[in-house]
Amino acid sequence: MIDSSKNIRPGDILRKKRFGGELTETEIRAFVRGVVDGSFADYQISALLMAICIHGMSDRETLALTLEMARSGEMLDLSRIPGIKADKHSTGGVGDTTSLILVPLVACCGVRMAKMSGRGLGFTGGTLDKMESIPGMRVDLDVDAFERQVTDIGCAIIGQTAELAPADKVLYALRDVTETVDCMPLVVSSILSKKLAAGCDVVVLDVKTGSGAIMQTLEDSRKLAQMMVRIGNLSGKKFSAVITDMDQPLGNYIGNALEVEEAIDVLAGRTAGDLKDVSLQLGAHILKGAGAVSSIAEGVEMLDGKIASGEGLRKFAAMIRAQGGDPRVAEDTSLLPKAKSTVELRADEPGYLAAIRTDDVGNAAKLLGAGRERKTDAIDPAVGIVMHRRVGDKVRRGDLLATMHVGERSDRIGAYNLLRRAIRIGTAPVPRPTLIHDVIEA
Amino acid sequence: MIDSSKNIRPGDILRKKRFGGELTETEIRAFVRGVVDGSFADYQISALLMAICIHGMSDRETLALTLEMARSGEMLDLSRIPGIKADKHSTGGVGDTTSLILVPLVACCGVRMAKMSGRGLGFTGGTLDKMESIPGMRVDLDVDAFERQVTDIGCAIIGQTAELAPADKVLYALRDVTETVDCMPLVVSSILSKKLAAGCDVVVLDVKTGSGAIMQTLEDSRKLAQMMVRIGNLSGKKFSAVITDMDQPLGNYIGNALEVEEAIDVLAGRTAGDLKDVSLQLGAHILKGAGAVSSIAEGVEMLDGKIASGEGLRKFAAMIRAQGGDPRVAEDTSLLPKAKSTVELRADEPGYLAAIRTDDVGNAAKLLGAGRERKTDAIDPAVGIVMHRRVGDKVRRGDLLATMHVGERSDRIGAYNLLRRAIRIGTAPVPRPTLIHDVIEA
Repeated sequence: MIDSSKNIRPGDILRKKRFGGELTETEIRAFVRGVVDGSFADYQISALLMAICIHGMSDRETLALTLEMARSGEMLDLSRIPGIKADKHSTGGVGDTTSLILVPLVACCGVRMAKMSGRGLGFTGGTLDKMESIPGMRVDLDVDAFERQVTDIGCAIIGQTAELAPADKVLYALRDVTETVDCMPLVVSSILSKKLAAGCDVVVLDVKTGSGAIMQTLEDSRKLAQMMVRIGNLSGKKFSAVITDMDQPLGNYIGNALEVEEAIDVLAGRTAGDLKDVSLQLGAHILKGAGAVSSIAEGVEMLDGKIASGEGLRKFAAMIRAQGGDPRVAEDTSLLPKAKSTVELRADEPGYLAAIRTDDVGNAAKLLGAGRERKTDAIDPAVGIVMHRRVGDKVRRGDLLATMHVGERSDRIGAYNLLRRAIRIGTAPVPRPTLIHDVIEA
Repeated sequence: MIDSSKNIRPGDILRKKRFGGELTETEIRAFVRGVVDGSFADYQISALLMAICIHGMSDRETLALTLEMARSGEMLDLSRIPGIKADKHSTGGVGDTTSLILVPLVACCGVRMAKMSGRGLGFTGGTLDKMESIPGMRVDLDVDAFERQVTDIGCAIIGQTAELAPADKVLYALRDVTETVDCMPLVVSSILSKKLAAGCDVVVLDVKTGSGAIMQTLEDSRKLAQMMVRIGNLSGKKFSAVITDMDQPLGNYIGNALEVEEAIDVLAGRTAGDLKDVSLQLGAHILKGAGAVSSIAEGVEMLDGKIASGEGLRKFAAMIRAQGGDPRVAEDTSLLPKAKSTVELRADEPGYLAAIRTDDVGNAAKLLGAGRERKTDAIDPAVGIVMHRRVGDKVRRGDLLATMHVGERSDRIGAYNLLRRAIRIGTAPVPRPTLIHDVIEA
């Protein structure tokens, strides 16, 4: 077969997209190959990314881009692991620790969770950074060790291997510095290409909506979820999406060790609330997608049983042990890194907690040292924020709203001011936000 | 004064333009400074250029960009040269040798021509490459020598010094490889910034329209001319524009030494036609702008007189001598480089010469070696094409349409096929194209 994409010059593709044309599969193949082999220069890639942001991409283009990006590197074959392998992806938010909760719980129900995470540039560290706040914990397993662990104990969470969708790595680095991150076809292809290459059979997407999400309106979040499910299923895998609220932090703990602590509290049955509810919903969608249950309600009940029985927490400890970490943290969270000091934020006035600018809460945590500004920045695992009130709560003057966990390198004044401005107290009662906005299935 | 542009991040500017916003003067200053000092990376610049191409720029933005680019390097002060200093710029075309004709003629009329040319990536070489096809001719004079020559003999054509509008150099190099050349505000700011920095009082712009021009429709060419005159005059200089035809090569000779030969033929009074007519029109606009004549007709007559008297040709010889070249070429064009062999293109069928795809004629000349694909490519000064028929001419089968002057490195088959397809012969008579489409004055 002659690969006609070899005759396509970068200029042809750039010109077509500049004027809003639809790129063919062949043109997209030429582009992705050029991204990986360097024949498309950085400045040509970023010009094309900008044109894509402004003119958009059709479903056909987005599917082609996703598939070509997935094929740009290794495509994992997990067929040696018996049974159905599931994966989960969140578009990212603040206090968003569902993976640490649902991965062991789903594994307890007989569906294997083979989760590869990226080390994104988020408000706080990604799942990997949270995992690494557990003493000794390793996330750099190779594929063989990963397969063995998923086969033996039913779950693993590791760092994405470099060979997975290398085109995304190049594109993401450029998007990050050219204001082209929040562009639907680019978000879709970036997320899905890695999920397709990672080789799982069932993937549940947690698409966040609200002030702390990549898509801030429900309309955009729904579009993104629909596009991902549509294109994911066109690829032959089983994709579904749950649109969940990010108009306030999902969990009350924001940071790395802090989020591990809250996940353990949920697994131990000590903590209920939004974080637990979303984790069980997502887990139930995985169980349903894998055919282990016939309804979401049945799935939630099954997962909740694994909390009550203590199996979920034991599975979490087993996963920590398998990855070199200290499994005693599951029983004793005081073994996690702790900040030296705390700063309290109290209510200046009485009223109702009306709104939280979630992105600013995330940025405040970043100023404390919980997240990265640049890839090379070091994270302080101990720092972060604990929120004591949720939107809709009644507040008296002087009530504790949040506690900042502060480290030596924290910008405590910057973080305090940002956090204070992020929390708005009003005089009128406000309803509690909807937690699950929508479910998108194939 | 606090320069608030220092607090602006590249991302702020990129984001604003991505969504079609109007950049402020401060933002544009930050951008241009970032282009020159490297704090705007190539990939950020090219993403912004693409966004500008798609969303456009307002007049205010274009003026600010032009002024900031002009100020990005040295601003020449030609006030030591007595009298009014004039410059001329063409948006570029095929067989477009008007500078070599009008510069000496205008100088004969007492208006000093201080012309700095770029070494563009055109179909054929730029004015500098044509000049350099004259044995010994130098175009790399420094500013002192340039001023002295303009003062002494009234004219000079030299290469643009590196210090002039350095931002344009960076931007042009990126535009060239990201399909963002033909974008009106970018064309305007690129041309005008250099003209403003070059310090002349009067500038006449030759805006080409048609199949061999950067703007192919009259509407776009008129918009470009209007924008340039408007913004040029806002800057305080005297700008006017003539929109001239580029639906066929302007002169009949296309190449470097070949175009010098045709310019000499015009100056010697041996050749009339479109090239001469446009040269005299542009020259007359300069004379009028400088106050040396009160009408274009008077200017044309005065310039024509300098051909008839031989003064123009003598001035051309004086300019060659001053720049180290062999002035005898003015009397004996056989001293110019000559191609080893020629290839004739004859009419396959009788009829009327209906149309010439001028860009393809230019590309054919480039394939012969008369122009550059890349900046580092060497030009063959001797090669090119001589056209024997113009649009509207009656043609018999077997008539000579064009002669290719071929060198050792010429792609003669590629050029022949391109040239053949570029010339269309029809059965019905066609009118001769309009030569001067419009004049735009302040």
